[in-house]
Amino acid sequence: MQITLNHGSGGRVSHKLISELFLKYFQNNVLSELTDSAILGFFDGKIAFTTDSYVVDPIFFPGGNIGKLAICGTVNDLSVAGAVPKFLSVAVILEEGLPYDELETIISTMSQEALKAGVTIVTGDTKVVPKGKGDKIYITTSGIGILDPKFTDISYGVRVKPGDKLIINGNMGDHAIAILAARESLRFETSVISDCAALNHMIQKILEICPQVSFMRDITRGGLATVANELAEKTKLGIRIYEENIPLHPSTMGICEIFGFDPLFLANEGKILIVAPSQYANDIVNIMKDFPEGENASVIGEVVDEHPSQVILQTLSGGKRLLEMPSGIQLPRIC
Amino acid sequence: MQITLNHGSGGRVSHKLISELFLKYFQNNVLSELTDSAILGFFDGKIAFTTDSYVVDPIFFPGGNIGKLAICGTVNDLSVAGAVPKFLSVAVILEEGLPYDELETIISTMSQEALKAGVTIVTGDTKVVPKGKGDKIYITTSGIGILDPKFTDISYGVRVKPGDKLIINGNMGDHAIAILAARESLRFETSVISDCAALNHMIQKILEICPQVSFMRDITRGGLATVANELAEKTKLGIRIYEENIPLHPSTMGICEIFGFDPLFLANEGKILIVAPSQYANDIVNIMKDFPEGENASVIGEVVDEHPSQVILQTLSGGKRLLEMPSGIQLPRIC
Repeated sequence: MQITLNHGSGGRVSHKLISELFLKYFQNNVLSELTDSAILGFFDGKIAFTTDSYVVDPIFFPGGNIGKLAICGTVNDLSVAGAVPKFLSVAVILEEGLPYDELETIISTMSQEALKAGVTIVTGDTKVVPKGKGDKIYITTSGIGILDPKFTDISYGVRVKPGDKLIINGNMGDHAIAILAARESLRFETSVISDCAALNHMIQKILEICPQVSFMRDITRGGLATVANELAEKTKLGIRIYEENIPLHPSTMGICEIFGFDPLFLANEGKILIVAPSQYANDIVNIMKDFPEGENASVIGEVVDEHPSQVILQTLSGGKRLLEMPSGIQLPRIC
Repeated sequence: MQITLNHGSGGRVSHKLISELFLKYFQNNVLSELTDSAILGFFDGKIAFTTDSYVVDPIFFPGGNIGKLAICGTVNDLSVAGAVPKFLSVAVILEEGLPYDELETIISTMSQEALKAGVTIVTGDTKVVPKGKGDKIYITTSGIGILDPKFTDISYGVRVKPGDKLIINGNMGDHAIAILAARESLRFETSVISDCAALNHMIQKILEICPQVSFMRDITRGGLATVANELAEKTKLGIRIYEENIPLHPSTMGICEIFGFDPLFLANEGKILIVAPSQYANDIVNIMKDFPEGENASVIGEVVDEHPSQVILQTLSGGKRLLEMPSGIQLPRIC
C-alpha cells in the first residue's frame, strides 16, 4: 500500500490514516481528542518553544531514520535551553507513492523515541504532495518545554566568562559520515553510525549536579566550528579549541581525507557543547560518561580573553589556525 | 537572486539569509536572540498548541499567498479552541532555485499578517532541498495561545445540545475556487478571491459578548461537510443544514457545476462554524457582520435529536439528503 493524494484530503481517507497510524502509535488523551489545538496545562512560569523541519536524505540510515531525528532534534533544542521537554507537535509532508510500511516504521520509531525522552506528541498535521514535489517524507516537529527559573538565561550566553571550559559528549561527525555512507550515489562501507539521540536525561542530570553551567548548544548543522563561532560572536570572547582533545571515530579521519571534509564542520545529532566554570569540567565529563551518549566525553577547549569573537584551533601539529564559520555547505540535507 | 542549497547549510550564508530576511521582517526581541528555543513567559494557566504545514499550489493566488495562509490558518486553529493566539514558530522548506524576491514577498506578508493578528513569530527554521524535491516553498507554522479557563472545554463538543444553531461567517468555497482559477493547468477568469483571513479578533469579540458558545471549528480542507460530520460523530447528535441559507459567491455555483464540485465540500481559509444556543444566534450573526470577514454571516442549521451522528441537508428543491464526509479529495494542495 502506498500513500495517495487522498490521504491528505481532510476527508474519510485522511481520518483513517490518522486514526490507524498516528493515533495508534502516538496514543494519548490529548491527541485523541482530534481538536484543532491541543489543550495543555497547567503552566506556571516560563516555557521554551522551538521548531525544526527535517529533510534528511536518505530517510533511513545506520543509527536511525528521519522520525528519530525529528523527535531527538527538537527534544535537544529544548534541553539545551535548560528546559524540560514536555510536548511535541508533528507535521508531515508526504510524497505520493511513499510505501505505507516505511511511514509506519518512521511513526513507530517516533513513538518509541518520544516515550524514551518522556515527551508527549499532542497535535499534528498531515499533507500529501504529488510525486516529484517532495522526497518521500519531510517532518516538522515543534516542542514546548518547562523552564526552571534558574536556567532562563543559560541560552543567551551571558553567563560565559574567560576561563570557562568547553566540553563535548563524544565523537564529532558521526551523523554526517553515516548519512554520507548511506547515500544512493556513493554508498560505502563504514562502521560509523549516526549519533542521533535525545540528550535530555543526560542534560538534566548535568544541570541537577552542576546548575552553574554557563552555556549549552547542540552541535548539529555546520558542526562544532559553527557552534563555537556563534558562541564567540555572542559573547565577544575568544574560544580556544585543542584538536588533540576532540574525539573522533577511527574511520572518520580517513573518510574525511577522501572527501575533503573537516570533522569540525560535520553535523552531529546527539552531541552538545557545554561551557562551564573550570572547576566543574571534570564532574560534567564524568556525568556524561555515565550515559551511552557520553562515553567519549572530553574537555576540548576554553574561553579566553584574547582574540575576541574568534575561534582558534590549536592543531595536532602544534600550530594555531583560525577556525572560521563555514560559509556554505559540505553536505546538503544532513538533517 | 535565487535560493541555493548553501542557504540551508547552517553556515554563514544561512545566517545572512536569517538576519537579512527573517529577522528583518519578523523583528522582535525573542527571535533576535537566535537561541535554539524561544524563551516565553510568564504563563499561568492552560495553553492551546497547534501545528499545520502549508503546501498550497500555486503559492501566490488572488487574495493571498502561502505565507498569509500559514499565519492565518494557525491563528484560526488556536482561536477556535477558545484561545488568544500569542506566539508562532515558522519552519520553511525552500526548493533550490526559488527566486529571492518571491520569498521576500511571502515573508513580508507573514510579518504583516502576524502584526494584524497580534501574534509574535518567536522561533523558526530554514531548510533547502534540491530542485525537484519540493515545490518552491512549504511552510509549517506552530502556535501557542493562552486559554481562558472558561473556554477549555469548547473544542471538545461537550457543550453542544439539541436546539443549538449552526452559524457560519460567509460564503462557502471561495478559497478553493480562487486556487482552482489560479492553477497553471486550467487558469480561468473569476471574481472570486480567497477568503484567507485571521479570524481571532472576530472570534474574541463573539466569546466576549457570548461566552455561552457551544463549539467552534474552522472550515478548511474537506469543507463544511467534513466539519459538520466531525461534529455529528463527536456529539452523537444529528445535524440539520438548510441549503438555502448557505451563502455562496454568485460565480461559485456555476464553476462548481462545470467542474463537478459541491461547494459544501470545498476548502475555505477564513470561515468558521459556530454552534451556539438558539437565543444567541442572531447576536453572533450581528457581531460577525461588524467584521469584513463576516459580512455574509448566516444561521445555516441546527443540532437535532433525530438521526444521531448524521448530517442531513435540506435541499433547495425541498428534498432531504444525507451529507456524508467526503472520502477523498476534490482538489489536492488547497492549503
